[in-house]
Amino acid sequence: MSESVQWSELRWDARGLLPVVVQDAGTREVLMVAWMNEQALRLTLETGETHFWSRSRGELWHKGLTSGNRQTLTALRVDCDGDTLLVQVEPLGPACHTGESSCFFRSLAGAG
Amino acid sequence: MSESVQWSELRWDARGLLPVVVQDAGTREVLMVAWMNEQALRLTLETGETHFWSRSRGELWHKGLTSGNRQTLTALRVDCDGDTLLVQVEPLGPACHTGESSCFFRSLAGAG
Repeated sequence: MSESVQWSELRWDARGLLPVVVQDAGTREVLMVAWMNEQALRLTLETGETHFWSRSRGELWHKGLTSGNRQTLTALRVDCDGDTLLVQVEPLGPACHTGESSCFFRSLAGAG
Repeated sequence: MSESVQWSELRWDARGLLPVVVQDAGTREVLMVAWMNEQALRLTLETGETHFWSRSRGELWHKGLTSGNRQTLTALRVDCDGDTLLVQVEPLGPACHTGESSCFFRSLAGAG
């Protein structure tokens, strides 16, 4: 992990967003995928808790602010293209609004 | 894992794509994020090896076809919104074109 990426190298999409994979730092379970704009990324780094941009609500979203299921940042990685982030967190509760620990609790019908 | 999602419930984006998180089924390392269209998803399920849609090249992409670093599918999950996939794989080699096992081998400068 010697290499690092400058902010200016991040490749935000046309909406100014990056997809973000959120992984449990302990269990390594993939919890969710959400989106960050520049402000959400800065707030995540400044506060040590995940912030995202809600595309459906069109607003900044401090994960767990109302539910209490906040996520404490332990590591942040950038992919080789600079267009996707991986954040590793210690979750204070379920990541999914359904109460499941991960949003990926369903399989695809017919996919075995 | 009792719940399953129908194909008709998948929420493809305006380009007909879904983001896909690829995770090593053994080590649970997050390897990469790529995109699938409907054809890539069908081919992945039919062949048991990951296929993606390359946004930069504008073409279907059988991961590892030239490098040999194919990925054998072991599980496929859909998130609560139906707009993101998680595929767990056994990788036959590094996921990243740089030779790193994961594309997320860099940190963000100043992010600690």
